[in-house]
Formats: sequence, structure tokens, C-alpha cells
Amino acid sequence: MNSGEHGSVAGRRLETDSMGSIGVPVDRLWGAQTERSLHHFSIGKDRMPIEVIRAMALLKKACANVNRDLGKLPEEKADLIVRAADEILSGKLDEEFPLFVWQTGSGTQTNMNVNEVISNRAIQLSGGEVGSKTPVHPNDHVNMSQSSNDTFPTAMHIAAVMALEGRLLPSLRALLIAIEEKARELSDIVKIGRTHLMDAVPLTLGQEFSGYISQLAQGKTNIESSIPGLLRLAIGGTAVGTGLNAHPEFAERTAREVARLTGYPFVSAPNKFMALAGHEELLQASSALRNLAASLMKIANDMRWMGSGPRCGLGELSLPENEPGSSIMPGKVNPTQCEAMTMIAIQVMGNDTAVGFAGSQGNFELNVFKPLIIFNFLHSVEILSDGMTSFRKYLVEGIRPNIQRIKNHLENSLMLVTALSPHIGYDRAAKVAHEAFVGETTLKEAAIRLGFVTGEQFDAWVRPEKMIGPAV
Amino acid sequence: MNSGEHGSVAGRRLETDSMGSIGVPVDRLWGAQTERSLHHFSIGKDRMPIEVIRAMALLKKACANVNRDLGKLPEEKADLIVRAADEILSGKLDEEFPLFVWQTGSGTQTNMNVNEVISNRAIQLSGGEVGSKTPVHPNDHVNMSQSSNDTFPTAMHIAAVMALEGRLLPSLRALLIAIEEKARELSDIVKIGRTHLMDAVPLTLGQEFSGYISQLAQGKTNIESSIPGLLRLAIGGTAVGTGLNAHPEFAERTAREVARLTGYPFVSAPNKFMALAGHEELLQASSALRNLAASLMKIANDMRWMGSGPRCGLGELSLPENEPGSSIMPGKVNPTQCEAMTMIAIQVMGNDTAVGFAGSQGNFELNVFKPLIIFNFLHSVEILSDGMTSFRKYLVEGIRPNIQRIKNHLENSLMLVTALSPHIGYDRAAKVAHEAFVGETTLKEAAIRLGFVTGEQFDAWVRPEKMIGPAV
Amino acid sequence: MNSGEHGSVAGRRLETDSMGSIGVPVDRLWGAQTERSLHHFSIGKDRMPIEVIRAMALLKKACANVNRDLGKLPEEKADLIVRAADEILSGKLDEEFPLFVWQTGSGTQTNMNVNEVISNRAIQLSGGEVGSKTPVHPNDHVNMSQSSNDTFPTAMHIAAVMALEGRLLPSLRALLIAIEEKARELSDIVKIGRTHLMDAVPLTLGQEFSGYISQLAQGKTNIESSIPGLLRLAIGGTAVGTGLNAHPEFAERTAREVARLTGYPFVSAPNKFMALAGHEELLQASSALRNLAASLMKIANDMRWMGSGPRCGLGELSLPENEPGSSIMPGKVNPTQCEAMTMIAIQVMGNDTAVGFAGSQGNFELNVFKPLIIFNFLHSVEILSDGMTSFRKYLVEGIRPNIQRIKNHLENSLMLVTALSPHIGYDRAAKVAHEAFVGETTLKEAAIRLGFVTGEQFDAWVRPEKMIGPAV
Amino acid sequence: MNSGEHGSVAGRRLETDSMGSIGVPVDRLWGAQTERSLHHFSIGKDRMPIEVIRAMALLKKACANVNRDLGKLPEEKADLIVRAADEILSGKLDEEFPLFVWQTGSGTQTNMNVNEVISNRAIQLSGGEVGSKTPVHPNDHVNMSQSSNDTFPTAMHIAAVMALEGRLLPSLRALLIAIEEKARELSDIVKIGRTHLMDAVPLTLGQEFSGYISQLAQGKTNIESSIPGLLRLAIGGTAVGTGLNAHPEFAERTAREVARLTGYPFVSAPNKFMALAGHEELLQASSALRNLAASLMKIANDMRWMGSGPRCGLGELSLPENEPGSSIMPGKVNPTQCEAMTMIAIQVMGNDTAVGFAGSQGNFELNVFKPLIIFNFLHSVEILSDGMTSFRKYLVEGIRPNIQRIKNHLENSLMLVTALSPHIGYDRAAKVAHEAFVGETTLKEAAIRLGFVTGEQFDAWVRPEKMIGPAV
Repeated sequence: MNSGEHGSVAGRRLETDSMGSIGVPVDRLWGAQTERSLHHFSIGKDRMPIEVIRAMALLKKACANVNRDLGKLPEEKADLIVRAADEILSGKLDEEFPLFVWQTGSGTQTNMNVNEVISNRAIQLSGGEVGSKTPVHPNDHVNMSQSSNDTFPTAMHIAAVMALEGRLLPSLRALLIAIEEKARELSDIVKIGRTHLMDAVPLTLGQEFSGYISQLAQGKTNIESSIPGLLRLAIGGTAVGTGLNAHPEFAERTAREVARLTGYPFVSAPNKFMALAGHEELLQASSALRNLAASLMKIANDMRWMGSGPRCGLGELSLPENEPGSSIMPGKVNPTQCEAMTMIAIQVMGNDTAVGFAGSQGNFELNVFKPLIIFNFLHSVEILSDGMTSFRKYLVEGIRPNIQRIKNHLENSLMLVTALSPHIGYDRAAKVAHEAFVGETTLKEAAIRLGFVTGEQFDAWVRPEKMIGPAV
Repeated sequence: MNSGEHGSVAGRRLETDSMGSIGVPVDRLWGAQTERSLHHFSIGKDRMPIEVIRAMALLKKACANVNRDLGKLPEEKADLIVRAADEILSGKLDEEFPLFVWQTGSGTQTNMNVNEVISNRAIQLSGGEVGSKTPVHPNDHVNMSQSSNDTFPTAMHIAAVMALEGRLLPSLRALLIAIEEKARELSDIVKIGRTHLMDAVPLTLGQEFSGYISQLAQGKTNIESSIPGLLRLAIGGTAVGTGLNAHPEFAERTAREVARLTGYPFVSAPNKFMALAGHEELLQASSALRNLAASLMKIANDMRWMGSGPRCGLGELSLPENEPGSSIMPGKVNPTQCEAMTMIAIQVMGNDTAVGFAGSQGNFELNVFKPLIIFNFLHSVEILSDGMTSFRKYLVEGIRPNIQRIKNHLENSLMLVTALSPHIGYDRAAKVAHEAFVGETTLKEAAIRLGFVTGEQFDAWVRPEKMIGPAV
Repeated sequence: MNSGEHGSVAGRRLETDSMGSIGVPVDRLWGAQTERSLHHFSIGKDRMPIEVIRAMALLKKACANVNRDLGKLPEEKADLIVRAADEILSGKLDEEFPLFVWQTGSGTQTNMNVNEVISNRAIQLSGGEVGSKTPVHPNDHVNMSQSSNDTFPTAMHIAAVMALEGRLLPSLRALLIAIEEKARELSDIVKIGRTHLMDAVPLTLGQEFSGYISQLAQGKTNIESSIPGLLRLAIGGTAVGTGLNAHPEFAERTAREVARLTGYPFVSAPNKFMALAGHEELLQASSALRNLAASLMKIANDMRWMGSGPRCGLGELSLPENEPGSSIMPGKVNPTQCEAMTMIAIQVMGNDTAVGFAGSQGNFELNVFKPLIIFNFLHSVEILSDGMTSFRKYLVEGIRPNIQRIKNHLENSLMLVTALSPHIGYDRAAKVAHEAFVGETTLKEAAIRLGFVTGEQFDAWVRPEKMIGPAV
Repeated sequence: MNSGEHGSVAGRRLETDSMGSIGVPVDRLWGAQTERSLHHFSIGKDRMPIEVIRAMALLKKACANVNRDLGKLPEEKADLIVRAADEILSGKLDEEFPLFVWQTGSGTQTNMNVNEVISNRAIQLSGGEVGSKTPVHPNDHVNMSQSSNDTFPTAMHIAAVMALEGRLLPSLRALLIAIEEKARELSDIVKIGRTHLMDAVPLTLGQEFSGYISQLAQGKTNIESSIPGLLRLAIGGTAVGTGLNAHPEFAERTAREVARLTGYPFVSAPNKFMALAGHEELLQASSALRNLAASLMKIANDMRWMGSGPRCGLGELSLPENEPGSSIMPGKVNPTQCEAMTMIAIQVMGNDTAVGFAGSQGNFELNVFKPLIIFNFLHSVEILSDGMTSFRKYLVEGIRPNIQRIKNHLENSLMLVTALSPHIGYDRAAKVAHEAFVGETTLKEAAIRLGFVTGEQFDAWVRPEKMIGPAV
């Protein structure tokens, strides 16, 4: 047992667990298992997300309430646990959760970190001796009726729902509204369409932006429909899903209590074996983020391309000038919000690849890639949420059309010839376009020269403003 | 224009398009643009999936019916188009669609391949001259009111829905039923649980399999909820989503006609700009396949691990012996169905990575990664569907429990000690387990030796068959 | 044993293996195990690549020669095996290898397919009775001193090297030469640079293309440096890497024989345990393909963007007009070669994701994702090779600069102001650019108006043709 | 211009850039552009890695030295820049670099952050007024002869090389040595092999571990061979690769100076256009990490499977007991180091997917996914490095063989029958194995009962300790 070696170091007190004792910094509330994890898993800088810690504290509070109600946990112990958990929820104890993502794949060490901190803080509150496990034992009381195997995935779901509801969806809704407003503002501007990057038939800027709205609305729907799955909680499954050592009503009651505490309609997962060993709900939610990212990448790319220039690009949109763009080229302004967004989109895709792979790697009664899954999921939520907010405020809301440029493009386009097809047929219309292109002339001149139409017919048939919808 | 050069070759007839003429094999029905694509895109062996061709033919039939009803297409031309399309649907003309996936990203060449074959076959049926475009012109009539930009994504959705409904979901349902039956059959067998690959507390084989059922049922739900999105059709958007050159009723009528012809409730996509430029619905459906793949990987891994041995593995399940497993080790039998399934799962994940990336790469009015998206999607559906069928028939249905081995494991497990925790506390229970492990003895002996319980207490408290659920 | 059931069907003969007998089509040369695989693994349409079959046949020939030389295999049996293997290599027996990729993860079924076909064909050649295993037994003679576990990865490496050397590298080299020629042709054309899609300081088209050359040359180097790893062969490791049942000289001799037969310097893998259980060499080669794909995607994107228009895009390059681009928009031409290439690039990335994941999933003495790995690898090689050939012939070689457009862009660019920075400082230069942009005037006018330079100074300092390199 | 609004806030001083003035916290050294970035890109918690900041500072120092030597930068300004850069390198100014990864894709804001901090710190050192840009201007002096477009990729390469050389390779080498020692220690222990998870022929534990050594050694080679590419520096390319505004000797001299300062043989990139617009070298290095991750995943999986149990698993290895494994199951110990490692492996795969995708998304003269690429690359390096160290110290070094269990497995294995094949043929050997399996007896009994061998023959031929290599 390679522990205990720090026991005698100054500034440390001894904490014990089933493997023996180990020295812990005197001013910290965590116990032996947290210390062991710090020792054995000092890997990188990725801490277990605080959202998971908070969700875990909330769950511990809920469990204490339920265990008390079920007569398993004495009132005073329950109260102490609740008070300590509330302190975690308030953010006061954030420094007590130093563990890294790259630990045991069940999150047991984080579960014990929370158990230990609550135990010791409860002991403090009761005037007891930190580390004594009396009157509140980290396993027997804080973790009562629980296992890391059900508490950690429960905390994953709680954190995921709160992140989606509290951060991502508000940010997405605000972006949707901003694009809707912009689409209305731009609804009358007829512009050239582009397919294959090449000049095509016209549409309005409002129509173009309506596509973005539909994409994002679809993304919102997908994310929202991933939430019912996330509302199903593993708690009550204990070690392998059977609920061993928990009261028969524990699962349902605790889910209800979590619902009460959070305001979200959490329920007890109908199958606890899946809840521990598979993470399909988080995979589906991660997929929804991935697909939102794909939409955002397309939208951000369109906007920066339409804003390209100012003189040698497409130049149809003016994007907000937020900061100097170059350390060497004076006066340069770049579509940096789009760049941040497209980077975020790719990161989310990479994160989702990891989540999907991890989701496939469960064995028997447990998937031991839990910290990775929730870490990547929350990372994606965070950068998407903040990224959409920046994108909205510092890009979308400030977009302005370059009317003159848009008009020039529209009038020059050879693809207006498409309006002639129903009248003279595809093949002759193609000849008109070819003639105009090669002869560097207008469609009208080419069409008349080829004898396919009169000038009057051309003017009657080729009207960009009439080409933005079906016609009878 | 690098065409026409094959014009004079023996065995070829001339076909023309807006770029000129080109020689086409006399016995083929395709036209100039198909030939040009074959010439310029002879890349690998991946043909455009026949499901897309069939969906396109069905769409052409629907469009002809609608254009006739709207008075845009003469009755006899419409009838000819319908007859030719029906021949494609019957499978008679499969050889007429030689184009590769790696072509233009809009699928225009495949759209034209279908237009050309229908045109020429219609001409044949009417007694006309193949290649004459009379009486049925590939663009003006077969493609009337259409663009590749709306027909191809429409065909993608039709093919996707039919593949999911016709192949994947039946195969998945059958697998679910087979596992449900197996779970019932195994419901009374108490076995050791495993978490972190390590011995844990017990559960029944039926409970373990119930987790698989829940995972797959969740996968089914996810796939089913991706279908409404796929039922929305781009048709009617024509070139850029505005519906230019189509009748105002064309979109709705054609979607209804496709619904009538297929029996699936297709509708007109509410936003055609998204329908051409984004493929979020297919991305979401691909994600659902990816997540089903993750579930299947877990299930297949569990089964082969539980079947590992026969003498030096876990050996709790007997898997069907379908074929000799080794060319050098006589008598070896391997869990090959599981291996095929786990390979399929990884392929589906790779395919989904490609689909997701491709979905992000649209520009303006069009995403030009359409052939890649549908190719990978249908590939995933196909190997998952067939793979689940094989997995069910040649693995799941033949699984047998090795009762004796399961019993031995159960009785040996040190983790039965968990049942003591509520009685003697976690810390003392841990001492019992440790003592038994180090002393290579039974839990009971260790517990008594340590003085924590009497023999009677031990027997009353540690009863594996009572440990498979919560207790009051 | 679910076999033998086809035994009595007409048109079938009985073949046997260690599990019993099974009916096989009378006109086919394969045996019982191939038939069992067809029965149990009828999954999709992905056949084991013929390149793997050929590599396997070549290996069987080499092994027969070596076993004969070592005195283990009688001369006449060896000769029969060699003759049958040569027929496979000639392509005459392609129809005898119907198995799918989604089979046992060791490729055992394909190894036995080859063993069985060689056995039966050898028996035919000797005048014996097909299926009798006399005088050439599929296991004892064709597979002598071998296991699927070493033959299949050996065939993977042989196929991979031949595909890279025979297809990919020639195609890449030809593309490199074409771009080099194009770069020389365009070396004097000064154009505007673009960073962040925005107008930047100038460079020549030749310089721009030199970047592509360097990217592809780096890709070539990476691929070439993956080949030494692929030249290391597993053969001689037999079942688990120890070489059990093989002659001590077998590994080295067979590698030498494969080298002799192929002309490539294959060697015996120094560690056979890795050669069976890991596939790092193929992973590294797949990575090199992935990274080449990234380069190609960038290049193809640049070219289609520079070719965008014809009137409302960047329009600096004219791309070859290979085929009509639209079924609805007459006269439209699209950068379809670029689209095929970017789709290929994404497919290769998806394939590589699958390969990487599969490479991580070995257990103990074997990785059982072998068919998936080689299938995806060869798929990537094939579409990259053919794709680069099309891209070169139908895009790169036909690129023409639009001199007038390039000139207009260059003269309009505000970023020429950068040449003023060393003279008047970044901040004042920024003011000049801003003034010109807002005032819609030229840099020169703005610079003079602001009083920062004289007209003479401006003309002396701002000379695009001098801005394409460092200056003293 | 949405800036300046914080200007009047207490505790802030005004800083200016080409867009105007903005308030900056008085106690901070950064300037206007850093502040603008903080305002516009407050996205998540991912800071630009400090390794990149340090590399950038080192580069600024090198540039100042070179510009001074070339007579472009006055001695005193150069000295001030060097002193300020040295403070950054010492870690004293870490708090001055608050920017996030999700900013402009060129890293311009981080380049300016460094320029601004050096400028202001240099001004402080010279007794000037912070924010005055005198005597050291962030653009004209600190950024002299540079652009973000060449400095940022240069810093990426410097940071990457130092991370690989300073962290990853030492950690990997130490792990290799530890496994080599373990392999030697275990070299005589004959154990059963496993293929397809099923019992196979024997090998020694040392042989098994030798496979891991070869895998990791290959990984080391791949990583090492990615370093020459990373040693090529973009510096000197300035804005678009042409080197505009830099001295002709600047590129070479600066690369040499960076080499001198770091001790690594950096050189000037032969093609600067690729160096700005492509990141193939980092992609290849990221691939090498991905492939190392695949090896580590396989190794970690093997070890935890061989350590599975303690009573109901394979149980052939004892893994170190580092911490209690379960919050509910007393006495449980889990292979947590393996779990951390497999999670790390998957994270690295996800990171590499993002890097590869990002590498494909350059346009024209710049790839604007630079921060994402280096962020993911350094993340992978960091968690792999630390992860391998933990894995070595807390897992590999403490592995012990369970001799008795290994022996039991070996003696029980039916696959020892393989040794009979050369004597009695594959088919009869298969019968022996089958008979022993079905009859639940030993191979010897079965072989004798079937009359294929005598007891003496069996004993002479089937000797596990002779089966671990080829035989004559």
C-alpha cells in the first residue's frame, strides 16, 4: 500500500480509509481517497467540471432527505449533510474539489471527494473532529443507499440537463431571435444565389437567412428532444443496477427530490442496468450538439464569405469591425467571430467523436469512461453557448448589407437565363448563357442576337424580383 | 470542351447535351451527361447506391404525374415517363446507372443519368429515335419543375426512410425480440456482476440482458424520432430553394404523390433553403445509427467476454459454434458474430464522422457533399441491418448459460460482503473482504474470525439470491 | 452444428471440415468453411478486397516454395499449390472469393477461402477429386506452418504496399508534376493574397501554387516513410506470435520469398507479437493518407474559390468546363472535380477514424478488426489515387488565369498600404487604409490627403510587383 | 466601434490601437487589442496554452536580437524587448495572458497580447508611460518584420517540439524501460495465449510484454520522425508567406536564433506559403500521438483484463492496489490506472479528429484554425505524458504474476492440441480437442481414447514449455 507516506509531513493531518491512513493538508476538507487520487492521478490540468461537483452535492442533499424520510438516516445527520451540501452548491467550497478528469472511469474518486468533503464539513458544523467520520461517515451516511456507479451517472445527467437548459438553449434561442430579426430586416433584398460557389438564380437575403433559422430551429428541436432521456436518473441502481442496499422506494423518491430541488422533471430511470453500463442518452445529446455545430459552421462560413473583401471578395455583407485584424497589415479587419465559431464547431465534432467511442466501451455492469463523457459533453455545451452569444452580439446583430454590391452582382448574373427555359427550352437557354459568357455581353443582347426572344419578351420574362418564388 | 472524341468509335451512337455531342455505347440508354461523368469521374468502385436511383425514379414518376395534373406536361409524355420510371423501379434497368459516388457534389450527374435513361426509354417506348430527346426531353420534360438541387436531396430522404423502415427497424425489432426472449429464459440465473472488469455484487442474467434491451430500445426510439425529419422533402425548391420555374402547388402535390406511391407520410419541407443547403435531418439520423452502433458494440463485447474460454476465460455463456475458428489450432471456436458486429459498429462510427463533417461544409444555397452523405448513411444502414440479423440468428438465439461456471463464480465472489455493510458498516465490511482475499478463505470464515458477525448472521444477511434487488 | 443442411440440394456437392459436411455449389472451388461463412455472414455488399485475396495467394505461393525448400512439403504438392496460386494471381479465379468484409475479425474465413480454393484447384490439376483434400489439404499443406493470424496481417501489408507503390504514389507524383508545371506557368502573375478570406498583401500565383506543391510533397514524404513499417511481415508468427509449428527459418525465408516475388524489399517483422496484435504500421500509413486528404481538401477548396463566378465570385481562375453543371440552370458550369476531391478527402478522414479506433481494440495476442482496417485503408488508397488522377487531368492541367480580373483585384486592394508601414509606422498606415475604405477612394489619394506621404513617395514605396518577397 | 466604453471606469487606464481607445485594468500590462479580445471572445474556460505564450515570447526575443543585428532595431529597444520577453519566459507574467483559445483563427490576438505586454513592460523598464507605445511600440518594434501569420505558427512549432521533447518522449521512454524490465522479470513464465478472447497456444509473459514494447517503440519512432517537420519555422514569411517587410536574411537568422535559445535544431521552413496555410507537420505529429494512443489503449486493456477478478476473472496478474475502488462495495480494488489511460487514449483520438478536420480548412494564404490545432495537440501531449507517468509508476512497475492461476490455465487449455497437428494432421487434432471439450476430459485422455497417439507420444509432443517458439 503506497500511501500514508505523507502522514508525518508538517501541515498535514491524517485521514483514513479502508486502505489505511494518509496525510492531507490541514486546511482542506477532503479525506484519504481524494488525497490518494491526487497522488495517483496528477494528469494534466483538466479538473472534474464544477458542474458535476455541484450536481453531485445536490444529489447528496436529495439522498439525505430521502434516507431521513425513509427512516434510515437520523434527522441530525441528514441535516448536517444538507447544510454541507448547500455550502458546496453556494460555491463556497469550490477549492475542495481538486481532482482531475483522468481518474477512475466510474468517477468513484469524485464521488468520494464529495462524500469526504460533506462528511468533514458536517463534522465541523457539528463541532466534531475532522477526519473522525463521526457523526457523519462518508460512506455509511453521505453515500448511504448509493454507489458511485449510480451517483456519478446521476450527476452527469443533472449537470447535462442544467447546462443545456441553463446555458445552451437560452444562447441558441437568443441567436435564433437575432437571425430572425436580421432576416426580417433583409427580407426585401434580392440577391444572387450561389450553388457550387457559382452564380445561380436569385433569392432574397431574407430567404437565405431563413435557411439558417430552420437549421438552428432543427438543432434546437434535436437538443430539446434529447432532454427527456437525460431526465432519467440512475440513482437507486447502486452498485450494479439491482438497487442492493437501497430501500425499494429510494430510487423514485430521490428522483422526485432532485426534481423538486432543481425544478426540472427528473424521473427514475426505468432500467438501471443500462443507466450504469450505457450512456446512450448522453451520446444522443452529444450528437445533437455535433449537428448543431455543423449548422453553425455552415452559417458562420456563409457569413464570412459574404463579408469577404472588402474589395476583392464577394463583399455583399458588411460585418462589424470589432478589433484590428492584423499585426502587420494596417486597417485590416477580419471575420473573427466566424473563425471562433468554426473552430468551436470542429472542437465539438472532435469531442463528439470521443464521446461516441467512449459510449461503446462499456463492459458488463459499468461503463468506465464516465468522466471523459461528461467532460467532453460539458465542454461542448460551454463553448457552443458562449460562442453563440459572442457570435450573436458581435457578428449577427451588426451585419449590414452592401446594397450596391448586391445589386451589381444580381444584374450581372448569367443565371437569370433560367427564367427563359420554360419559354424557349433548356437547350436554347443554355446557348444564350454561353453566348453571353463568351461574348462578354448581357443575356438580353445574346438572346436577341440568337433570335430566340424579342427585347419585350426578355424584359417580361427575366425579372429577378419575380424569380424568388414559384410562378403560375 | 473535351468531349465528342468517342463519337466515331464503332459500337457507339452520338448523344448530345448543351456542350455538344459524345459517343455512347449503342446498347445503353444513358445520354451525353452520363457518359461525360463516366469519363471524368472514374474513381474507385463505389457506385451511386441503387436505392438512390430507385428513389429518384419514383420521384420522377411522381413529378410527371403532378406536372400532368397541373396541366404543364401533356398526358402522353407523362405516361411515357411513368412507364420508364416503373421499369427502373422494377430493377430491369439497373445496368443503366453506372455512375460513381465521387462525382459532382450535388448529384446532378445522377439526376441527369436518371433523366437521360427515362428520356431514352420513353422514346423507345414511343417508337422514337434514342438520343433525339423527342418526344421526351431529359431536361424539359423528365426534369420539369425540378433541379438536381431539390431532386437529389429528395431522393436521399426517400431512400433513407425506406432503408430505415424497410431494413434497419425490422432487423432491430427482431433482435430486440430475440434478446427479450433470451432474457426471459435466463431470468432466474443469479450470477456475479462485474464493474471495472472486477467481481462485484450479483444480478441475474435476465437483468443483465434487460440492460441490452433498454439500450436497443433507446436506439430504436432515436432512429424512429429521426424519421419525421427525413419525411420532409426538398422537392419544389428547384435550383436554390425559391421554387423558380415550378408551379406554386408543385411542392405540396409532389410530396403527397411520393407519399401515395411509397406508403410513407412524406411532406413538403417547410423551408426549402435548408433542405438544399443543410442536411441536419440526415445528420441526426446518422447520429442515431452511430449511437445504436455504440450499444451494439457494448452488447457484442459483453457476450464474447462472457463466452470467453472455454477453459481459461470467463466461460459463463456458451456461444453457438458456427464454424471452425482457426486454420492452425484444431477445435478452436471463436465469437465471430461478435467480431463482425464490433467491426460494423466501428465502421458506422467512421461513416458518421464523415457524414457530420460533410454536413458542416455547405456553402450558400447548396451543400455539395450530398453523394458522400447518402452513401455513408445507406452503408451504415445496410451493414447494421444485415449485421443485426446475423448476430441474432447465429449468436443471440443460440446462447446457452454455463450453469456450473456461473454458480462457482457467484459463490466465490468476495463482493457478497456488500450485504454486510448496512449491518456492520463499510469499514468493517472492507476488513472482512480484505481478510478473505489475503487469507484465501471464504467471506464467512473471515467475518467470523474478525468477530464482526456470527455464522447465523452471516447466513441470514449474505444471500446472493436476495441481493438482486432493493430490500426493506 | 447448423451446417450440412444444404448437403442434399441439387447442384451442390458435399465439402467437409472439422465441423462436418456442407453442400457447396458444384461449379465452385471453395470448400466448407467458405460456404459456412457465406451462410453466417451475408452482410451488405462489401467483399474482401481482391487486393487482399491476391496478396494472400502470393503468400501461399511463397510459403509453398519455402516449405518445399525446408523439406517439409513434397515437391509435387508445392508445385500444385504454386500453380493454383498463380491462377488466382492471374485473376482467373476472382469469382471464387465471395466472402464479405464483415466476418471473423482475424480474416480466418478469407484465409480458409484461399486455402480451400488452392486445395481444390490443386486437386483438379492433379486429376483428383474436388473436396477430397488429397493430395493437397487446405490446412495441412496450403496452410502449412501458417495461421490466419500471421497470414492475414501479412497479406494486409503486402496489399497495402502494393496499393501505395502501385497506385497512390504514382498518382500523387503525377499530380505534383502537374501542379509544378502550372506553378511555373503562373509564376509571373502577381495577385492579391487573402488571409481570413480578406484582401491581404500580394503574392504571385506561382508562389501560391508552390504552397500546394510543398503540402503534397510533405504528404508524399509521410506516405513513403510509412512504407518501411509496412514492409515488415507477420508471417512466421503463426497462431500467437511464437512461431509454433513453423520451421525456425520459415519467417525469414518467406519474407525473402515475398520480396523476390513482388520486387519490394519485404522483411520479417522483428516482433511477431505486435505484428498480430497491433497494427500501428497501418495506422500510421492511414494517418498519412488522412493528412494528404487534408492537403487536398485545402487545395481543391482554393481552386474552386478562385474559380468562383463567373461574374459574382472571385473569378481569378478559369477552370475546365467538363460537363453541364445544372439540370435546370442552362449554361452553368461547376467545379465538380474539386467537389469529388473534397468528398474523397472527407471519406478518407472518416475511414481513418475507423482505422484508428479499430487499431486500439486488440486483445492479448490478436487484434480482431483486421478486415475493417485493410478494407478502409485500401478504400482510401483507391479513391485518393483515382481522385487525384481525375483532379489532375480534368482540373489542374486545364486551369487558366483570368489576367484582367486578377489585375483589377490587385490594384484595388487596400492592403498595399502595408508597404508604407516601415516608412510611416503601423498606426499612420492604418489611418490611410481606413480613410481610403471609408472615403471609397484610392490609397494614394488617402495617403496624400492625410499628409503622410507625397505622391512620389507613394509610387516609390507601394509597388505590388516588389511586394512579393523580402526587401533590404 | 463598440469599444472605449470602459474607458472612464475607475481602476482602468486608456489604451489605444488603430480602432481607438479602450479602458484596461490599471494593474495589467496588456493593451487595447487584448482588452478587445477579452470583451468579444469571452468563451468558455480554455485559455491559450501557456506553452504557446512562452514560445511566442522566446520568438519575440529572437526577433529582437535579429532585427538589432540587421540594423533595423536600435540596441536599446532590442534590449528592452529581450528583458521583457525574459520575464515572460521566467513565468513572472503569466497573469498577463488571459485570452481564450476561441478567438481569431490566426492567433493574432495572442500575438498582439504578447506584443502589448512586452511593449508595456519594456516601457516600464525604461521608465516610460505604460500605454504610450514609446519607446517600444507593439507593432513597429516588438512585431517588427513579423506578422501574426508567421509568428503564431512559429510559436506552435516551438511549443510542439518542446512539449514532445520535454514531456512526451521522456515519459514514453520511461514507460518503455519499465515495461522492458517487467518483460525481463516475466520472461520465463509460460502462459496461455488468447486470440479472439479464446484459449490459444502458449507463450511467455515476457513475449506478450515484448509486443507492448514493440508497439510503444514504434510509437516513439513515429513521434520522433514527426519532429523534423516541426523544426521548420514559418517565421520570415510575414503576412502571406512572401516575407514582405522583412529583411532577406531575417527568416534564416531568426530560425538559427530560436535554435540557439532553445537548444533544438530549428530551421527556416523551405516554403513559407505552406507554413502559413497548411499545418501538415502538426497533423502528422498529432497522428503519431493518435497512434500511440491506440497502442496504449490496447496495452491498458490487456493489463486490466489479465488483472480481472480477483476470483471470477482471468486473474493472471495482480495489479497494484492504489486506492479503495468502490464507495459501496467494501474491499473492492479496480484497475483505475488502466481506466485513466484508456480514457486518455480516446480523448487523444477525439482531439486528433478535430486537428485533422481543422487542418483541411485553410483558405488561400492562411489556415485560421491555428488556436484549435495547437490547443488540441498540446492537450494530447499533456495528458499522454502525465498519463504514461502515472501508468508506469502506479501500474506497470507494480504488476505481479499470479503464478498458480497462470499454471492452471496453461494446463487446462485444449489448444495445446495444436502441437499434435504436425504429427496427426489438423483434422484428427480437431477431433481430439472436440472429444476433450465435450467429454470434459484432458487432451491426453481424449487423444489416446481416439487412438491417434500413445501416452508416450503425447507427452513427447505436447510440452507447453517447448511451444513458445518455432521448432525444427
